[in-house]
Amino acid sequence: MTDTTPRNSLTLLGLGDMGTALARTWLAAGHSLTVWNRTPAKAGPLAAEGAVVAPTAAAAVAANGLVVTCLLDDASVRSTLDGIDLTGKDLVDLTTGTPAEARARAAWAEARGARYTDGGIMATPTMIGVPEAGGYVFYSGSRALFDTHRATLEVPAGARFVGEDPGHAALHDVALLSAMYGLFAGISHAYALTEGEDIAPKELAPLLSEWLGAMGFFVGNAAERLTSRDFTTGVVSNLAMQVAATGTLLRTAEEQGVSAELISPYLDLMRRRLTADPAAHGGEDTAGALLLLKKER
Amino acid sequence: MTDTTPRNSLTLLGLGDMGTALARTWLAAGHSLTVWNRTPAKAGPLAAEGAVVAPTAAAAVAANGLVVTCLLDDASVRSTLDGIDLTGKDLVDLTTGTPAEARARAAWAEARGARYTDGGIMATPTMIGVPEAGGYVFYSGSRALFDTHRATLEVPAGARFVGEDPGHAALHDVALLSAMYGLFAGISHAYALTEGEDIAPKELAPLLSEWLGAMGFFVGNAAERLTSRDFTTGVVSNLAMQVAATGTLLRTAEEQGVSAELISPYLDLMRRRLTADPAAHGGEDTAGALLLLKKER
Ligand SMILES: NC(=O)c1ccc[n+]([C@@H]2O[C@H](COP(=O)([O-])OP(=O)(O)OC[C@H]3O[C@@H](n4cnc5c(N)ncnc54)[C@H](OP(=O)(O)O)[C@@H]3O)[C@@H](O)[C@H]2O)c1
Ligand SMILES: NC(=O)c1ccc[n+]([C@@H]2O[C@H](COP(=O)([O-])OP(=O)(O)OC[C@H]3O[C@@H](n4cnc5c(N)ncnc54)[C@H](OP(=O)(O)O)[C@@H]3O)[C@@H](O)[C@H]2O)c1
Repeated sequence: MTDTTPRNSLTLLGLGDMGTALARTWLAAGHSLTVWNRTPAKAGPLAAEGAVVAPTAAAAVAANGLVVTCLLDDASVRSTLDGIDLTGKDLVDLTTGTPAEARARAAWAEARGARYTDGGIMATPTMIGVPEAGGYVFYSGSRALFDTHRATLEVPAGARFVGEDPGHAALHDVALLSAMYGLFAGISHAYALTEGEDIAPKELAPLLSEWLGAMGFFVGNAAERLTSRDFTTGVVSNLAMQVAATGTLLRTAEEQGVSAELISPYLDLMRRRLTADPAAHGGEDTAGALLLLKKER
Repeated sequence: MTDTTPRNSLTLLGLGDMGTALARTWLAAGHSLTVWNRTPAKAGPLAAEGAVVAPTAAAAVAANGLVVTCLLDDASVRSTLDGIDLTGKDLVDLTTGTPAEARARAAWAEARGARYTDGGIMATPTMIGVPEAGGYVFYSGSRALFDTHRATLEVPAGARFVGEDPGHAALHDVALLSAMYGLFAGISHAYALTEGEDIAPKELAPLLSEWLGAMGFFVGNAAERLTSRDFTTGVVSNLAMQVAATGTLLRTAEEQGVSAELISPYLDLMRRRLTADPAAHGGEDTAGALLLLKKER
């Protein structure tokens, strides 16, 4: 498949908050941009900024070799592109979805003669076009497509290619978002404990930030344990001791009138890992506990 | 109450892993240290390093004005000190416990004529006496006691005084540990999602570290929202959008054969905050959700 699209020419389907932010960066960078949105009114401001507004999704797709979708969900991508000729197109889908949805969309696009790369946006619309905000997009799927259009794809935010499996961009996206909610949960529980006490949130904040920064060592530590499959090397605090200490955490929550719902699942996971075989697991790092999350299939 | 104890003279009750580590730093710093342990054998190595080994807890307490306890739990502190004359003593309890236990122990000690300061150790034994490891101890209770013995208390690890309420050292301790388990939970879920995929933990690690570092902004953000009680200012990503996106996280866990037990409680908390009043809360930051953790009393 040869790319006949000039580097700086592309089509964008979807002008919601994210699509509009993406469009602005391509226009500002001097790209020739064709846009389409289900509700046409949203294209108005972009037309004034130089975008070509296509009357139909089919016309928008026909206009350029590179077609980017940024719609609500995978179902809206399917229904929008259904029946449109994708032969020879390079389709980049920035709509958030699951790994399986991305893999199915890739197979679907390839069956229609297109190359496909999936994207997972690690940024809010306000971070798009603002390099110092640090946002970026995970890409996976066709490496050839990514290499061809890399310069264009890097305009809105940093671009990180994470493999030929089209599901891997979504998987990285969801893995990071999930980890973030764990972090948010821990921070929320900490503030809830001190709510109503004579401890100002702004006094606790720097202590929390410093501590969580230091405890971030767990990311690298867990990676080493998972790689070696040896959970008893490099142990900072062993599982038996940590499980023994969970009572204090739960009783403190109870004393402070705070539901332990956000922290008890992890405390329970550690306990289950320990009690499955205290002799084998008591001296481990806590990372081994995560193996229990994987269901038998 | 006048302090007649030379600065560098103290008693330590409890020579478990932590007590032994503490003892070594005081001996190394040239302090005159009297020790006692329920199981006397553990005192042997310290005697060789210059510690005075007392035959009974009462004799150990009688030897010095400053008495530090580092025992298993609050019940063991009580039973160890029961019936021993504490008049004029400065008692510092480094045993981990709940805020209520610390407050009760303070009242108990003061009723026996002692000053009391509670401590919460934010370090493992291997971090004691190793300033570059960054460990420290939260102290709260008698400020006068803390000021008198500050130089001694700072020997094993950094010392941070967090208020006259004797429960506040324990509360800070538990708040930080709880937040840490949230962080660990999030990281564990992320690795579980990618387990068995062609994504090496060591490839995911730097991405996770960078992302969680950036998402640490939530600590300061939540502090500002909780202080102002206005959850709709400075919103990076609104609650309605975040709740809408939770389906992708849960479906990805399902696809990957991973139990969502570690992340679903926080996703559910956000949903409950939103559905309680979508118009009022949809445009909020997620920090408002933590208010739901506080039980009516
Ligand atoms: N906003 C963020 O912070 C953020 C961050 C990372 C990723 N994302 C992802 O980016 C994508 C777009 O997000 P957004 O914030 O732009 O959402 P949005 O503001 O709600 O916009 C949704 C877009 O999808 C279109 N759409 C919805 N259903 C459709 C259908 N059945 N057929 C055709 N078009 C349809 C909408 O068209 P109408 O204008 O006609 O309704 C609109 O263009 C989502 O997958 C989102 O998860 C967003
Ligand atoms: N280790 C850590 O990483 C860490 C970190 C922060 C805080 N802490 C806290 O520091 C404290 C001590 O921890 P550790 O690691 O030293 O624990 P440890 O190694 O299990 O030692 C427990 C100590 O408590 C004594 N003890 C237990 N029950 C007793 C009783 N009924 N009467 C008298 N003495 C009794 C033990 O005496 P015997 O020798 O006679 O059994 C031993 O000296 C705990 O509160 C712990 O939560 C520990």
